[in-house]
Amino acid sequence: MAEEAAVRAQADTVRRLKQDNADPDQIAKEVAKLLEMKAQLGEDEGKHKFVLKTPKGTRDYGPKQMAIRERVFNAIISCFKRHGAEVIDTPVFELKETLTGKYGEDSKLIYDLKDQGGELLSLRYDLTVPFARYLAMNKITNMKRYHVAKVYRRDNPAMTRGRYREFYQCDFDIAGQFDPMIPDAECLKIVHEILSDLELGDFLIKVNDRRILDGMFAVCGVPDSKFRTICSSVDKLDKVPWEEVRSEMVGEKGLSPEAADRIGEYVQLHGGLDLIEQLLQDPKLSQNKLAKEGLEDMKLLFEYLTLFGITGKISFDLSLARGLDYYTGVIFEAVLLHQENEHVEEPVSVGSVAGGGRYDGLVGMFDPKGRKVPCVGVSIGIERIFSILEQRLEASEEKIRTTETQVLVASAQKKLLEERLKLISELWDAGIKAEMLYKKNPKLLNQLQYCEETGIPLVAIVGEQELKDGVVKLRIVASREEVNVRRESLVEEIRIRTSQ
Amino acid sequence: MAEEAAVRAQADTVRRLKQDNADPDQIAKEVAKLLEMKAQLGEDEGKHKFVLKTPKGTRDYGPKQMAIRERVFNAIISCFKRHGAEVIDTPVFELKETLTGKYGEDSKLIYDLKDQGGELLSLRYDLTVPFARYLAMNKITNMKRYHVAKVYRRDNPAMTRGRYREFYQCDFDIAGQFDPMIPDAECLKIVHEILSDLELGDFLIKVNDRRILDGMFAVCGVPDSKFRTICSSVDKLDKVPWEEVRSEMVGEKGLSPEAADRIGEYVQLHGGLDLIEQLLQDPKLSQNKLAKEGLEDMKLLFEYLTLFGITGKISFDLSLARGLDYYTGVIFEAVLLHQENEHVEEPVSVGSVAGGGRYDGLVGMFDPKGRKVPCVGVSIGIERIFSILEQRLEASEEKIRTTETQVLVASAQKKLLEERLKLISELWDAGIKAEMLYKKNPKLLNQLQYCEETGIPLVAIVGEQELKDGVVKLRIVASREEVNVRRESLVEEIRIRTSQ
Repeated sequence: MAEEAAVRAQADTVRRLKQDNADPDQIAKEVAKLLEMKAQLGEDEGKHKFVLKTPKGTRDYGPKQMAIRERVFNAIISCFKRHGAEVIDTPVFELKETLTGKYGEDSKLIYDLKDQGGELLSLRYDLTVPFARYLAMNKITNMKRYHVAKVYRRDNPAMTRGRYREFYQCDFDIAGQFDPMIPDAECLKIVHEILSDLELGDFLIKVNDRRILDGMFAVCGVPDSKFRTICSSVDKLDKVPWEEVRSEMVGEKGLSPEAADRIGEYVQLHGGLDLIEQLLQDPKLSQNKLAKEGLEDMKLLFEYLTLFGITGKISFDLSLARGLDYYTGVIFEAVLLHQENEHVEEPVSVGSVAGGGRYDGLVGMFDPKGRKVPCVGVSIGIERIFSILEQRLEASEEKIRTTETQVLVASAQKKLLEERLKLISELWDAGIKAEMLYKKNPKLLNQLQYCEETGIPLVAIVGEQELKDGVVKLRIVASREEVNVRRESLVEEIRIRTSQ
Repeated sequence: MAEEAAVRAQADTVRRLKQDNADPDQIAKEVAKLLEMKAQLGEDEGKHKFVLKTPKGTRDYGPKQMAIRERVFNAIISCFKRHGAEVIDTPVFELKETLTGKYGEDSKLIYDLKDQGGELLSLRYDLTVPFARYLAMNKITNMKRYHVAKVYRRDNPAMTRGRYREFYQCDFDIAGQFDPMIPDAECLKIVHEILSDLELGDFLIKVNDRRILDGMFAVCGVPDSKFRTICSSVDKLDKVPWEEVRSEMVGEKGLSPEAADRIGEYVQLHGGLDLIEQLLQDPKLSQNKLAKEGLEDMKLLFEYLTLFGITGKISFDLSLARGLDYYTGVIFEAVLLHQENEHVEEPVSVGSVAGGGRYDGLVGMFDPKGRKVPCVGVSIGIERIFSILEQRLEASEEKIRTTETQVLVASAQKKLLEERLKLISELWDAGIKAEMLYKKNPKLLNQLQYCEETGIPLVAIVGEQELKDGVVKLRIVASREEVNVRRESLVEEIRIRTSQ
């Protein structure tokens, strides 16, 4: 093969350059070329083994899945609109440096684009960083917006549990300098409204504050430099038991056993206003400025949530940490409490379906002068919600239509294609949703069967006699009733019969 | 700097490995590491020069642009639904090999993802190839679907004219074995409906057939091997004059001047049924099997388009070629005839706003057994349409609302935050779109001003007297009228006053 010869020649070139102690950059360039040629060759050899699939961790949405997706989106977006949000959209990729330094340990999960000349790009990892970039770029200091779009994470997919590498986030954020906890409370109200609306079963919204966590770390004796990494360990508490987290803190991260044990006492606490009051009296925590600020704001937050009547599903939980680096105040996460479908491997914890928090420093990282725009927001992770609704739908055997077609234009005899085309064109132009079979002479039975299969409720049948009489025979599929309708009244008749 | 020292150490490692004539793969690995460290260092140095922008050829959509976008999407999607299409969605990236060999000379414009271990991926270039992959993967032989999503091309952006590297396509396709030209005619009807609906001014849909083109090339004496590349040259005729195209054919592509001149005579022809009849009598063309098939189908197509009543805007045009490799039959392209806004640099040709055609071989390229599924489809390119509507809106000074908020919950006195929170929560729970200012004690004037700015039509004002009386003062922003409404009737009153 010619390609193989070319690869050998390139290998020779590389060898020669190295013997000659050539410029390292030139050698690197030729080595890269060699590796690419080898990869290319491997690809060509594998052509007959072409794999027909979507990339790992991704999936297609067929018409049935799309119908479920639309329902969920509608519930979420109408809630966002109810709260007065505007909508924006941003590109699917950002300059690589826009994402750099925003996600802490998760940064390794970012998808980079290949350097094909020009800018270095990465796929967006969430919608929060692009929003902060948008605010800074347009010098906006005040905005309430939602954004529904796909984000990308090179994580280990667990698709049966709704964990993908490409997935939708539905974000609502409030940017601006306001009186404390009012926008924060609204974000929690939104989560409560959406999860109630979707009827996913019982749920709990855990709330904490980064300032309380940091204060707690300080009074437990965690050195400043270890705050973020110990925070990452605490974040695992919803998945692994305390003993494991403790040994990670002490073993891997070098925390003293005493400090770890002190943390262990705090992180098992959860409750409501009572717990907040109790901690405000805690001799150590109440002496820490950050923790005190956080606890006082938490108290205010709970007062507002009481006015909203939603404290029943809110738990102040000292074990909630959230992985991302950019949070600075209140953080929260909503979990579904039990899975109603028993076919799923892990019936107890469906995991988080929404999360968010306050990030007052992120916009400032983009502003050339470091001007801060305080923000708080919530992100609804809908893939898990999809998984649940999809399984529920399958179990229920409910039939969902995947089109909205009102009428099939059919013919009872041969040679009426032209008449069908004329009629369907009239219907389309009048705004009626209409289909016909793409056959010159379809059998009536096949046309009726198509309606049964796809749920089309009406059939408009053209026949020679009807054409002479200036009527169309309208058949109601469900009842098999047939009525002759004057051609000029057909549109109105279809509208009446399909309006509910 | 510690980083600089690390880079120097790595450079030493590379030098040593080369001197020792180490394994080339290991050297390559270390060189790659070195280059990455250098890049990293460059990044760090450049931190203060951080550029706040979206990637080249992309843009954000702010709330105003989104409002226009929604309008356009609604027009297009309701047309697709009117024609009975289902909807699907596919991942934004595909396996690289899925896209390989589908786009001819345009393949160089594909965005590849960086090889971070695992599969090699590319961003989708259009929605047609993913659709064909979807059909083959799910063994679907029959489907009418639409898909609205972003696609990616590393092209030279010309953003003022609506040419981007990330842009939306709105695709409608019909897959399946049917009687000739019926689905093809429907695709043209759809383009006609959408462009009429959007009121973009006069438009023309050019139609041709790859078989007519290939037959024409054959009778003009173009060698088989040059069909595709000469087709690419013809494709440029909407942008450059014939003389230039001719010299590309003869000079760059080695076509004989005589063959080029014969092509030159054909490609200036355009018309309707008359031209089709004339070419069916053409002594050379009519002898070519492919051309004859294409011309006979074109005649059938025009008969159907006559029944649809849309031939007035359709032109059979022998110069239309379309760049993509996968077309096998009818091809078409819609152009706007003149720009109504004069601020644009090129007032005459706005360029193509929709295109499509028949691709009967593409699904077979994915099927392990090569089973074919004939397809025809249309793609609406909405960025140019956006550009036009955006400019028109700016010129008109029409004010568009970017939220749907019905009522602002306000207070006339201080210390009523709790009451505002209680009332707004009631309204949200009743499905009313409501906002409030996130301030403890906002001034009434500021609250009214916010309504003026954002177009909120109603204000629900809580005051101490009203609370005692069990009423809320409802103010109509436009008329400044104020009425007291009993609290239990407030939701109903807001609904009535905002329902048109």
